[in-house]
Amino acid sequence: MAVIPVELAGRAYDVRVEAGLLANVAAHCSPFLRKPRVPVITDENVAQHWREPVERSLAAAGHEVRWHVLPAGERAKSWAELARTVDWLLNEEVERGDHILALGGGVVGDLSGFAAAILKRGCGFIQLPTTLLAQVDSSVGGKTAINTSAGKNLVGAFHQPSLVLADLDALGTLPPREMRAGYAEVIKYGILGDAEFFDWCEANGPAAISGDKHLLEQAVARSVAAKARIVAQDERETTGARALLNLGHTFGHALEAQTGFSERLLHGEGVALGMALAARYSARRGFISRGDAARVSRAIAAAGLPTELSTLGLNCSGKELADHMLHDKKMDAGTLPFILLRSIGAAFLDRNVTLSDVAAFLDEELQRS
Amino acid sequence: MAVIPVELAGRAYDVRVEAGLLANVAAHCSPFLRKPRVPVITDENVAQHWREPVERSLAAAGHEVRWHVLPAGERAKSWAELARTVDWLLNEEVERGDHILALGGGVVGDLSGFAAAILKRGCGFIQLPTTLLAQVDSSVGGKTAINTSAGKNLVGAFHQPSLVLADLDALGTLPPREMRAGYAEVIKYGILGDAEFFDWCEANGPAAISGDKHLLEQAVARSVAAKARIVAQDERETTGARALLNLGHTFGHALEAQTGFSERLLHGEGVALGMALAARYSARRGFISRGDAARVSRAIAAAGLPTELSTLGLNCSGKELADHMLHDKKMDAGTLPFILLRSIGAAFLDRNVTLSDVAAFLDEELQRS
Repeated sequence: MAVIPVELAGRAYDVRVEAGLLANVAAHCSPFLRKPRVPVITDENVAQHWREPVERSLAAAGHEVRWHVLPAGERAKSWAELARTVDWLLNEEVERGDHILALGGGVVGDLSGFAAAILKRGCGFIQLPTTLLAQVDSSVGGKTAINTSAGKNLVGAFHQPSLVLADLDALGTLPPREMRAGYAEVIKYGILGDAEFFDWCEANGPAAISGDKHLLEQAVARSVAAKARIVAQDERETTGARALLNLGHTFGHALEAQTGFSERLLHGEGVALGMALAARYSARRGFISRGDAARVSRAIAAAGLPTELSTLGLNCSGKELADHMLHDKKMDAGTLPFILLRSIGAAFLDRNVTLSDVAAFLDEELQRS
Repeated sequence: MAVIPVELAGRAYDVRVEAGLLANVAAHCSPFLRKPRVPVITDENVAQHWREPVERSLAAAGHEVRWHVLPAGERAKSWAELARTVDWLLNEEVERGDHILALGGGVVGDLSGFAAAILKRGCGFIQLPTTLLAQVDSSVGGKTAINTSAGKNLVGAFHQPSLVLADLDALGTLPPREMRAGYAEVIKYGILGDAEFFDWCEANGPAAISGDKHLLEQAVARSVAAKARIVAQDERETTGARALLNLGHTFGHALEAQTGFSERLLHGEGVALGMALAARYSARRGFISRGDAARVSRAIAAAGLPTELSTLGLNCSGKELADHMLHDKKMDAGTLPFILLRSIGAAFLDRNVTLSDVAAFLDEELQRS
């Protein structure tokens, strides 16, 4: 088992990575469960695979499990489901010192974490991420949120979990496309801050997402360690360190918005294509060589992820894409900080990017075949 | 002008107390207003008195004021109004570095502060409290919340304002009953932690709430200083120091619940009666003399506030009242911490109170004439 500590002043917690954690969830969570009754939040899809083993482990330890099952998909990250979830927790008489278990992907973790953040001004929660994306990204670092008509993740809180259990067995039930999408956030850590890990991803990434448990454990543990390091430096995204995690996300978010946040482009696919674009834009600005940009793109494509705008079949201009960036949460007094590359393994925050230049770049990319 | 600093690590802010602050709001807020557009949240009642002077001051400084007017009263602290307010702020393109102005009493401050806490995971806000209760209590210390069907203030966040402007002129438009209710929280600071301030309240309290501006400034400034000291020790209510501020609130909350959170008993009136009960219960437990309990009661009654259960005309048992306490936010693993008195000016947190003993005490109190 890999154990990665997330070092936050006064609120350090561990991320454990191993196969079999969920089947043994009661033992891992027991220091945090002070009452027989345990509230668990999950969604319809995850419940099919994991409700029974989790229930069995907790029941064997003498717990009475209370389930709150969300609808599957992004629609659960709404005001209505947030209110329903919090009202359910109040009805279950969950107290500040209690812990909620969040069993599922990023949607379940984001909604449950936000509910925990505001229940009685904050109660505890434990992340049990069941997707690769949630294990290497959303379950670690304390960002929680819901979506509104104005955009994704625009309403939420920073609220850290007390423990994260990344069970590699959960990835066995994941559709290959979800696995690939999650891998975009894995290779991201190499591209943005660790050239040696990028080399590792080039050599081992495709085998890891094909299901090699040993390689997967390394991929997840190294990703979590990278994220933990950055979050410890900048928990609330105020110094700029945490902003590096947004590599590929500004382009990716614009693409997700243009495709209606639909199945046409999963979040991880948007990030993958966004990173390829960020690398080429970095080359255009003279920060890296075209050869390095192509190497980034090849490593992403090798995992079956998109790297070319033309593959999306969009019917729009570069300006239309760039306009989606205006509503970015990180937009600050008229400027949008962009994460670019100085080399593979060294991202930086550039505050001198103009949206008109980005639009011109995207027009060229839309022509590329 | 009295200026009281609230010393929180990395996020210190000032509470300014003086007449005329709202008419000059732009000058006081200018360090925090980096854009022409300024979002202000208020309610229907406060808007009648204060929309025009606030608009005038901000417009003269070149600002475009955007207003969001809530319905008056506790019903504004709901999921629906929270979502409406946050959606409005998103529509106004409020960013993390911006500040929202909250102009009104505790309801406006609590709802606006909660909206600021979750908008893009936290933006700035400034409290412009217009009631005595809000000036001496709810606007300082960062507690924000909404109500749900399960109870009051059960959903919320700790989110500190960047500045609090307590304009004594605002108290001139306050109905006398609201003024008295706010005074309950003033004298509370004397009873719980400052025997000398309690003496001051005995001597000057009634004249202050009759409108003596000089005495009012002292009452507000000393109350804020007392709260600031406690909040600086225990921002998130984890060490027990902040719990002392709940003196009178556990009894008071049960009485508010029994009277349906209606006009029959305002929050401050419940706290007043609750403090008289806490003093007598402290005497019953042998912590203070009956004479001191009677002195607390007399000082509260001198301000026209209730101190006897019989005046409420309740038709219930002590157990029915005590049962309301079971749903208290501070309830922890089956015990409810009670704030009792060791002397006038020295409250403490007693974890050994049984609800059955409280019920027996309340039965006696219900018989008292």
